[in-house]
Parts: sequence; C-alpha cells; structure tokens
Amino acid sequence: MGLMSEALTQVLIPVAAVVGIGFALFQWFLVSKVRVSSGSGLDNGYKDRLIETDEPEEGIDTDEAVAKCAEIQNAISEAHNLTQTITLTYHLFPGATSFLFTEYKYLGIFTVVFGVIIFLFLGSVNGFSTKSEPCTYNKGNICKPALANALFSTIAFLLGALTSVLSGFLGMKIATYANARTTLEARKGVGKAFITAFRSGAVMGFLLAANGLLVLYVSINVFKLYYGDDWEGLYESITGYGLGGSSMALFGRVGGGIYTKAADVGADLVGKVERNIPEDDPRNPAVIADNVGDNVGDIAGMGSDLFGSYAESSCAALFVASISSIGIGHDYSAMSYPLIISSMGIVVCLITTLFATDIFEIKDVTEIEPTLKRQLLISTILMTAGIAVVSFSALPSQFTLYDFGTEKVVKNWYLFFCVSIGLWAGLVIGYTTEYYTSNAYSPVQDVADSCRTGAATNVIFGLALGYKSVIIPIFAIAIAIYVSFSLAAMYGIAVAALGMLSTIATGLAIDAYGPISDNAGGIAEMAGMSHKIRERTDALDAAGNTTAAIGKGFAIGSAALVSLALFGAFVSRAGIKVVDVLTPNVFIGLIVGAMLPYWFSAMTMKSVGSAALKMVEEVRRQFNNIPGLMEGTAKPDYATCVKISTDASLKEMIPPGALVMLTPLIAGTLFGVETLAGVLAGSLVSGVQVAISASNTGGAWDNAKKYIEAGATVHARMLGPKGSDAHKAAVIGDTIGDPLKDTSGPSLNILIKLMAVESLVFAPFFAAHGGLLFKLL
Amino acid sequence: MGLMSEALTQVLIPVAAVVGIGFALFQWFLVSKVRVSSGSGLDNGYKDRLIETDEPEEGIDTDEAVAKCAEIQNAISEAHNLTQTITLTYHLFPGATSFLFTEYKYLGIFTVVFGVIIFLFLGSVNGFSTKSEPCTYNKGNICKPALANALFSTIAFLLGALTSVLSGFLGMKIATYANARTTLEARKGVGKAFITAFRSGAVMGFLLAANGLLVLYVSINVFKLYYGDDWEGLYESITGYGLGGSSMALFGRVGGGIYTKAADVGADLVGKVERNIPEDDPRNPAVIADNVGDNVGDIAGMGSDLFGSYAESSCAALFVASISSIGIGHDYSAMSYPLIISSMGIVVCLITTLFATDIFEIKDVTEIEPTLKRQLLISTILMTAGIAVVSFSALPSQFTLYDFGTEKVVKNWYLFFCVSIGLWAGLVIGYTTEYYTSNAYSPVQDVADSCRTGAATNVIFGLALGYKSVIIPIFAIAIAIYVSFSLAAMYGIAVAALGMLSTIATGLAIDAYGPISDNAGGIAEMAGMSHKIRERTDALDAAGNTTAAIGKGFAIGSAALVSLALFGAFVSRAGIKVVDVLTPNVFIGLIVGAMLPYWFSAMTMKSVGSAALKMVEEVRRQFNNIPGLMEGTAKPDYATCVKISTDASLKEMIPPGALVMLTPLIAGTLFGVETLAGVLAGSLVSGVQVAISASNTGGAWDNAKKYIEAGATVHARMLGPKGSDAHKAAVIGDTIGDPLKDTSGPSLNILIKLMAVESLVFAPFFAAHGGLLFKLL
Repeated sequence: MGLMSEALTQVLIPVAAVVGIGFALFQWFLVSKVRVSSGSGLDNGYKDRLIETDEPEEGIDTDEAVAKCAEIQNAISEAHNLTQTITLTYHLFPGATSFLFTEYKYLGIFTVVFGVIIFLFLGSVNGFSTKSEPCTYNKGNICKPALANALFSTIAFLLGALTSVLSGFLGMKIATYANARTTLEARKGVGKAFITAFRSGAVMGFLLAANGLLVLYVSINVFKLYYGDDWEGLYESITGYGLGGSSMALFGRVGGGIYTKAADVGADLVGKVERNIPEDDPRNPAVIADNVGDNVGDIAGMGSDLFGSYAESSCAALFVASISSIGIGHDYSAMSYPLIISSMGIVVCLITTLFATDIFEIKDVTEIEPTLKRQLLISTILMTAGIAVVSFSALPSQFTLYDFGTEKVVKNWYLFFCVSIGLWAGLVIGYTTEYYTSNAYSPVQDVADSCRTGAATNVIFGLALGYKSVIIPIFAIAIAIYVSFSLAAMYGIAVAALGMLSTIATGLAIDAYGPISDNAGGIAEMAGMSHKIRERTDALDAAGNTTAAIGKGFAIGSAALVSLALFGAFVSRAGIKVVDVLTPNVFIGLIVGAMLPYWFSAMTMKSVGSAALKMVEEVRRQFNNIPGLMEGTAKPDYATCVKISTDASLKEMIPPGALVMLTPLIAGTLFGVETLAGVLAGSLVSGVQVAISASNTGGAWDNAKKYIEAGATVHARMLGPKGSDAHKAAVIGDTIGDPLKDTSGPSLNILIKLMAVESLVFAPFFAAHGGLLFKLL
Repeated sequence: MGLMSEALTQVLIPVAAVVGIGFALFQWFLVSKVRVSSGSGLDNGYKDRLIETDEPEEGIDTDEAVAKCAEIQNAISEAHNLTQTITLTYHLFPGATSFLFTEYKYLGIFTVVFGVIIFLFLGSVNGFSTKSEPCTYNKGNICKPALANALFSTIAFLLGALTSVLSGFLGMKIATYANARTTLEARKGVGKAFITAFRSGAVMGFLLAANGLLVLYVSINVFKLYYGDDWEGLYESITGYGLGGSSMALFGRVGGGIYTKAADVGADLVGKVERNIPEDDPRNPAVIADNVGDNVGDIAGMGSDLFGSYAESSCAALFVASISSIGIGHDYSAMSYPLIISSMGIVVCLITTLFATDIFEIKDVTEIEPTLKRQLLISTILMTAGIAVVSFSALPSQFTLYDFGTEKVVKNWYLFFCVSIGLWAGLVIGYTTEYYTSNAYSPVQDVADSCRTGAATNVIFGLALGYKSVIIPIFAIAIAIYVSFSLAAMYGIAVAALGMLSTIATGLAIDAYGPISDNAGGIAEMAGMSHKIRERTDALDAAGNTTAAIGKGFAIGSAALVSLALFGAFVSRAGIKVVDVLTPNVFIGLIVGAMLPYWFSAMTMKSVGSAALKMVEEVRRQFNNIPGLMEGTAKPDYATCVKISTDASLKEMIPPGALVMLTPLIAGTLFGVETLAGVLAGSLVSGVQVAISASNTGGAWDNAKKYIEAGATVHARMLGPKGSDAHKAAVIGDTIGDPLKDTSGPSLNILIKLMAVESLVFAPFFAAHGGLLFKLL
C-alpha cells in the first residue's frame, strides 16, 4: 500500500477539480472587467482611450470604431451562443447560429444510435443473460453480467459525449466573449491584450481539465455503487466515457474544420487574391463565416479533442490497472493514480498561469512567443516534481501488472519515470513544432524566401518542411514508448500519455489563445481600427499560429501514446497474446490501416475544396452583383456564405465519420481481432506522420505569409510588401495549408485514438463473435 | 519431382533470355530504319515528307526543321552516350555528357566501398574462419564457411550493380536514339510515331528482362561450381545480386530525379510562367537540361528500379526455396521455378508486343491510351496461361516450405494462384493508376476544373486525388498478400511479386514510351515543326504521362510485395520466430520506420526546390543579360544550366542515399534484428502510401494541365486556352507535382525494398553480433 489513504484520495481529487473550476471562473471574471458596450461614448472602452494620452497614435480610434467592435462582438458571439439562439436567430446572420444547433441535433441522433449499437453488441456477448459470470482476469471471483457492462458502457459513452460537447461549447463561449475584449485592450498596449487573450484561454483550459476530471470521478463512484468489488467490470464500462468524448471530438474537428476552412479559403481566394482587399475586411461576404469558423474548428474542436485524449488515457490506465495486482487487491489510492496525476496537473497549471498573468509582463511584441514557450517549460518543470510526489505517495513501492499473458513486477519509481518521460516528450514535441512553424527561425524563413520564385517552390518547400518536422517528434515518441513500455508495459504507456496531458490546462490556454487573437485581429480590421492596433493584434495572431501548431503537436503526440495504450488494453481485453506482423491476418490489417489516414484526408480535403469552390462563386457573385459593395456603401449578404459553410460541414462530415466509426466494427466483426490489431497499429504509425506533417506545413505557410506581411527584417522587406509577387505566392501557400492544418491534420489524431478506443469498448464482442469471414473460409 | 528434367530447364532459361535479347535487337533495327540526317535535303526524312501529299498542312516543315531535329537529336544523345564522351565533351553542352560520367565515377567508388563493407561484415560472422560449418537449416549437413559466403555475396553485389547500371544505360541509349525518330515519324501520322516510340520502349523492356535473367542464371551456375550441394550458401550469396541492383537504382532514381526536376521546374517557372514562352522552347536556357533529364530520371532510373525489383524478388524466392524441401532435396527444376516464370514472361511479352506493332494499328490520337491499356490486359491473360504451364510442369505436386520455425505443405496449384494473383493485382494497380491520372476520366477533370479558382484549390484537389488513389491499390496488394501468404507463406509472397513483374518487358515498354514521347514533343518544339505535329506528339505525351504513372504504380506495387518477401527471408535468416508489435523493440522500429519515407521525401523535395531556385535565377539572369535571347537571335548558355542540375544531383543524392543505406546497418547493429524488423515493416506500410499518392498526384496535375491545353472538350475549352488564369494555376500544380512524381515518389519504393534486401544480406551479421545498444543496457 502507498502512503495515501483512500479517504484522502476521495477528498483530494474532487477538491482539485473544484479549485480548477473556481480558478477558471475567476479568470473569466477578470476578463469580464473589460467592458464592451456600444451605447454611449462614455463607456469604459472610451474612457480607457481618453486616459491613454501617452500613446497619441491611438486617438484616431473613434467612438464609431468602438461601437462597431461591440456590434461585431455580438454578431460573432450570437453565432455560438445557444441560449441566445431563439432571440437573436434572425438578427444578423441566422445561419451561423443555427449551425451549432443543427450540428448538435445531428450529433444527438448519432449518439443515441451509437449508444444503442454499443448496448446491443456488448449485450449480445453473453446472449443478454442477466446472470453473473466468472471474471476474465481475476480468476475464481464472480463478476457482473455482460449485460450490465453493456448498460454501463452505454451510460459512460453518453456521459463522455455530453462532457465533450460541453467542453467545446464552453470554450467557444469564452472565446467569443473574449475576442472583442482583446481588441479593445490592444488599444492600451500589447501586454494588456495578451493578458486578456491568455486569461480567456486559461478559462477554457481549466474548465475543461477540471470538468473532465470531475465527471470521471463522479461516474466511477456512482458506478461503484452497483459494481462493488467487481473493478474489472467497473473500469471496463468506464472506457465508454473515452469513446463518447472522442466521437464527439471527431465530428467537432471534422465538421468545424470543414466549416471554417471553406469560409477561410473562399474569403481569401476572392478577397485577397482577386479583389486585393485585406484579410478580414468587412466588405468580404465570407468574413463572418470565417471568424465564426475559427471558434467552431479551433476552439470547440480542439477542446473536445484534448478532452477525448485525456478521458481515453485515463480510461486506458484505469482499465489496465484494474486487472493488475492493485486492482485485484482493491488498493483504491493506487488505482486512482491516473486521477491524482491529473489533479496535481490542475494545481501545477494554476501556479504556472500566474507567471504569465501576474509575475512577468509583456512590454513588446517580440516577447509574446518567448513568454508562451516559457509557460510550457515552467509547467513541465513544476509538474515533474508533482509527479514525484504523487508517485511516491499514492503507489505501493511495488506491484504486479498484467502483460499480455505474463506478469510484470513494477516499482513506484518506474511509474515516476513513465509519467515524466511522457511529459518531457510533450515539451520536446512542442518546442520542435515551434521551431518549424515560427517565423523567428530559418525553416519558415526559407519557405518565405522560396516565394521569390512563385507559388510552386513555396509549396514544394512547405511540403518538405512538414515532412522534415516529423523526425524529432517521432524520435521523442519512440523514446517515450520504449522507456515506459519497458518499465511498465501498457500501463506505462497509458500514464506516459497522461503525463503529456497532465499540463493540459496550460496547453489549452496557450492553444485557445491562438484563435482568440486571430478573431481579435479580425474584429480590429472589421471595426476599422488604427494601423497600430492591427499591428499588435497581428503580432498576437502570428504567435497564435505557432501556439496553435504547438497545441496540435501535443494533441498528436498524446494521441499516439493514448492510442498505443488503448491498443494494448484492447489486445489484453480481446485475449490476444501476440500481434505477429508475420501472419497474413495481421499484415493485411497493418497495410490497410496505414492507408486509412490517406483515405480520410482525401475525403476531408476534397470536402473543403468543394465547399470553398462554392464559397468563391458566391463571393464573386456578390462582388459582381451588389452595387457599392467594393466601395463599402452596401452591406454584403453574410448569411448566404454562412449557409454554404454550414451545409457543407454538416453534409461532408458524415463520410469521414462513418469511415472512422465503421472500420473497427467491420474489421473486428468480419476479420477478427488480429486483423483489427493490425489495422490499429498501421493507422497509428502512419497517421501520426501524416498529422504532424500536415499541421506543421500549414502552420509554416501561414507564418511565412505573416513574415512577409510584417516585414520585420531586411529579408522580409525584400520579399514584401503585401501585394508583391512573393506575397501572392505566400497567400496561395497559406490557402493550401488551411485544410491541411485545420481540417485533415488535427482530425487524424482523433481517427487513430477513436478507432482504438472503439475497439477496446467492443473487444468483448469481437472476442466472442468476431472474424466471421475467416471463420466462413 | 515435376515433369521438367534438369537438362530441359538448363536449356530453356538461357534460350528464353537469348530470344529476348534477339527480339530487342530486332526492334532496335526496325527503329533504326527511320533515318535522321541533317546533311542533305534528299535524305529519307525529307522524302517521306514529299510523299505525304495528302496532308498538306505538314508541308511547312522545311528542310531546316528536319536538320534542326537531327542536330538536337545529336545534342541529347551525346549527353548520355559514354562512348562518345571523349570526342564530344566540349562540343555543345559538356556538362550533360559529363554528368553520367561523373555519376558513374561516384557510383563506382560507392560500390567498391560498400562491397568491402559487405565482405568485412559478413566475413566477421565467424571470425573470418576458412573452415566449413554445419548448415543452419539443412541440419546435419556441412555448409561452406561464412567467409566464402561473404566473398560470393560481394561478387553477386558487384554483378548486380553492374547489370543495373548497364540496364539504365542501355535504356537511355535507345531512348535518346528514338526520340527524334519519333518526332520525324509524327509527320507521317500518329500511328507511325506511336509504333516508333513503342518499339523503342520494347527494346529497353526486353533487353532489361532478358539481361537480368541471363546474368542471374549464369551467376548461379558459376557459383554452383564452388558451392556444389550447399544450396543454402549458394542462394544466400546470390541475394547480393538484388542488393547491387537496387542500390544503383536508388542513386539513379534520386540523382536522376533531382537532375531532371531541377531543370524542369526551373525551365517552367521562368519560361512558362514569367516569360510566357511555350514548353521546350529552344530560347529557354534550361530546356536541354530538362530534355536530358527526362532520360536520366525516367528511363535510366526506372530501368534500374524495375531491374532491382526483378532481381530481388527472384533472389527472395530462390533463398526461401533453398531452405524448403525442394532445396534440401536438390530438385533443380523446381528450384528454378522463379527463373522459368521469368523466361515464360519474356515469351509472353514477345507475343504481346506484336499485337501493338503489327496486329492493331493506331489511326487516331484517341486510340493511344486504349491500345496501351490493351497491351497490359493481353499480356496478363496470356501470362496466366503461361503460369499454369510452368507451375504444373516445373514443380512437384507437393512440397514443404520453411515457415518461421514450422513447416508448411504446399501443392503446385497453390503456387499457380500465388503467381497469378500477383500478376492480376498488378493489372488492377495499373488500371487504377490510369483512372486517376488520365485526363479521360473525372478525377483529373475535377482537378482541372478546380483551377477556375486558382492554384490553391488545384493543389488541394490534387493532393486529395493522390490520397484517394491509394485505396484500391492497397486493397489489391492486401488481397494478393493475404492469398499468397496463406497459401505458401513467404515463398508465396516472393513469387506473387515475381508474377507482378513477369510481364516486365511489356510494362517497361509502356513506361519507357512516356519519356520518349515527351522528348519527341520537345524536339518538335525546339525544331520549330508545325502545329499539327506538335499536337500529335502532345497526344503521345499525354498518354505517356499516364503510362509513366502506370509504370510507377507497378514499380510500387511490386516493391511492396518484394519488400515483404525480402522481409520474410530476412526474418527467417535472422532466426526470429515472431515479430510482435506488442514489444517495445518492435514497436519503436515500426513507428520510426513509418517516419523514414517522410524524412527521405523531405530531403529529396528540398533538394529539387533548392536546385530549382538556382536554376530559376540563372535562367532569369540569361534572359535579362543576353541581348536578343527572347527574340531568338542569340543562343542561350545551355551549359551553365546543365551544370547546375549536374552539381545539384550529385551533391544532393548523398544524404538520402546515406539515410537508406545506413538505417538497416545502424538499426541492426545497435538495436538488433527485432527493431530492424519493425523498421522494415513500418517503412513498407507507410512508404507505399506516400509513394502511390505522390506519383498519382503529380501525374494528375500534369495531365490536368495538358487537358486544359489540349482543349478537346467544351469543359476544357472553357478553362483554357494556354495563358488563361486557369491554365496558369494548372501550370503551378504541374510544377509542384514534378518532384513528387519524378523524384520523391518513385525513389520511395527503392527505399523500402533496398532496406529489406540490405537487411537480408547482412542478416547473418546482425544475428551474430547485432543489438549492441540493448545488450549494453
């Protein structure tokens, strides 16, 4: 037994969760103090401006600009705010509001249908018998019937789905709440704007981390009322939570990604390339859809995605632990080790956040990126100490793990290394991503330089950069896997994933900061604010592109570890002892699995492309047919553009979603668990490469364009200014990168982990009834 | 025992090889009857033109054009012809001539160094002992010492390297011989031009297939003089032949690919995009480098590549057979089954060729693609019958195979199915490739259509098309693997690969036809021939792009099967019984292996990009600084452009080459055979996807551009003509596709099979001394 008593554990976890939620609400309160109102010239925003007499160049921001800012704020916010749906639906752009409403309706139907499938498949394992049966691992004991597991898995699935949607929704709510405030604060200086954006990101990060932990904790304790001593069944059912979380994340990412990028690509192609008007210009009919989309895809999608990873790695660790000696011996504190790690993570991230918001202060745009990077480093160092504390107090000094048929003895300090190496591998991935996507370093500058000879060389260099950027992350993942696998088998992998995600609150804060800044810039442009302010929001946004790429790097890295842990749990649960590449069943799974990321990417990219084509035609039509639009005297028809994005995303998210959800079911049912194991391994090792390279290529193109636009160096000025041939080539690269970095790339990590967690949930069914086709042959 | 006696086998194989060589020479003789001379107006070419009075629009081809055609023919030809190197080096563009000379010098040094490495590594297995030792598989017997195997492996390696270089060289010689002749024949009609191009391709196909077979056959019989009854050692040594073949292919593909694409991209970016002059315009300083490059990369590279696959699949099959009951029982005819299949392939392809050249006649440009496709189908149907004959006559009705520690009983009709399914999978891959890259079908037309909204959507659609195009080939490969693996374990895979390659003579004829037509078009343009002729050569060329893609599809598909067979042979030789994904050693190999194709592609694409940047600057410099260049009154400085391509390709082929050659050595020596097995499996399943998608994306972009240029349909005319915005967007896509389809993509199949064959050759060393790092830990 470890040092922590069960009672202490029972207190600490919910307290940490509640502290996290409280901290998030406090940050929200601080953000809310930046007032936005459009009624009177004497409002807070206006007074702030009057006070700042030391920065005279900002004086040109008239009352009108502030008022407009507030109006746009309302417009974007209302597009997401479900509670305002009814009153505001037909006010400015009804399609955007109804998007989420319709999407949730679709997701609701899917969730119910899939919940029924889970129940029927798992219930059928033992012919819907209500009789208790001997346990699978804990020999000699009696476990609850398969039917109960079916029921509780379904409930866990529904809970996971609900929490995931809630995470995404809350993220969007705070993001849309924060972006105009960030714009307004930018009038006071870059430091204030940064803090507003960062605090808002923190709200999302903490709400999500704490919320996920709390729901999981409560579910386990509620389920335990029924399961009692049958922890095997309890934690098997809990894995449904991860499945629910990730399936919502999939649709959020894919649907949101298609929505936002159709709008973005369409807006850029006509606005920037053909009409030569700036990004986010309010004359562009697709601009509202674009700004709405940033929140839909990056914030809601990313929130659900990381929540899914978090839920899955916890579930994988819990399931593996439940069949180890700590599970069989009913050591509650040791069993809760994954949850205690997450609790410690919330505390560590809380301290880390104070460094950015209260201890250091940003005085210049050049300090933004270093500050964000420092946050990662601080949280990693603090968390390493936290892991040591948790490992030595919660775990017994030694216990035995189930390792594919054999038993493995592990010591508590092994686990310290497993979690820590995951954490530090995350940092390496984050820093590598930053190196390859920030325009402060040579890779992006080389890409920008290649624009001298046109779009073609820009694309060639960008693709090469993305391919190259996979090398270090893959080695980091490989080392983390080797160490944690060798020390503690699949449990080691699961907690390594959890280690990478333990600082999720900070990671998400940094990540959500990106789209908030992007939107802040958009609002500044639309409200016609001064050049100086636009420069500040642009600097925030450029750093945001990098942090978004870092966030995606984390998401992909953790997804790789999580998938492997789930894969291991699936193999354990399915009763396979060996996944031998040198058998035809496994090898065909491996090669077909490696193909799936390509199939999936083909679908999503084509969807974005087709929707963008429609968007371009609509935007062109409006510019041609609405008199006075280019002159700014007539208003564009934003609603039609929003509708195009909405329709495309809802329609086009079905085929890729079906591919991901059906593959494990078909492979497992028809070809059996060994082929399915091959499919999972293949899609994992192939998908992680495609995902990293796609995200980084896109991020690099975006920042290469910003590098030319900002003109901060002699080299950049030689390539610029906006509108030069090199800049035009850079815009083409940026446009191509949009679906890569915001649709295909980040959806792929969901593909690999969702297939793995689905296989794990359905493992009892596949083990009992799978492989029909081979049985027939 | 089968029906065939050893004596009959000993006669049939060399006879088939000699017939193949004879047929190739006869085709060459037919091509040579098209006379090219620039001296007098009364030469053959001129007379032909006078005769064709029914096509008056061709009358504008003056004596001057014919003379120029001959001059260009000389120029290109001399660039490759080693025998003319000394006399012609400084005549027109010395850099091109010296390219191959220098490349062969580099390759010579590499070959010697690597030969020494092979000898030292393999010799050290038993401490350079000259004593005979007990056999590994054929228990109880005495085999030759490891030192002998080291020596003979080295000799086989050198022979393979030499044959590979010779194959590439001969291909280039005939291609450069044929292209101006094709241009001249185009004056008489598309049918005549087609036959000339196709015959020339056939020369290469038959020379290569027959030559490879003959050298292998002779080597085996010479080695047998020493080895006698020790077939285990004999066929282990023979695998060096495959290693030699593929290592030359790697450098040919990579070096040639960088050479040609640097020139192509550079020529296009300035010529077509900036200066608005046609492709292959002689005023473009990079045009000679471009035309030379087509032959270096596509012909020499492809020749070496497919020869490598052929040699490797034969070696893999022979090695696996040597440790089966037919090897242990010394059944010579059954043992020679792979060689007899190849012999039958030569005969079948000979008959198939007659269909294209003598039985059917092409009267219209629309018949080109169907004819080429029909060739594939005819050869496949005939070969299926051929396989049946060989399987039932050469093999005993039943024998036992070594299957990773167990024994597997197979029947001769199992083998018939294995070879046939490989053959038919090749056809499916070929046809799928044609569907995705020919502008006769909707995928390419959709890509062309997306050019309406600019280069960005074109690139997005093109990438999506490439990703999508992997689906069917992967399923075809998976089914072929499943069937052949289940029926006859690794021997089944090896002969399935051989089945896919059995019609290599036809496949290569179709493939080599592409660059020949491309060059023919280039010569027509440079010689200023009439529009009508340029249209015909363009049609030949468009079909050529598709057939080049088909050729690459075959190369990739066969590489996948070959690699798996080699992988299996390596695992057998290294004494591993299981490659379990669920061990850390294997899994880290798997994920790092899956990363290697990206690393490799990053290097090659960046190399092409950098070289292209230099090329663009040089071409721009010449246009700006040479007065009268644009007007055609001054000659460009072709030599400097050729030098840029040469220097770039020689320098830049080293890092990717080192990555491929060193990875197995490092992985095997430091991490051991299990990690290496993981690396091989990972790079195989990941590389095949990257390779297929890169080749098809590039092919599709090229043909989308040609679709717009040709303007054959209402839709195409709406997008065109040349110089329209849509066409400009298409040109950008085409340029991006160049390094994808001609450098990275086709090099990747060499990466996967070369690493596999290298591992097989070094397997005795790794098994004895490998895994140093893990041993130290």
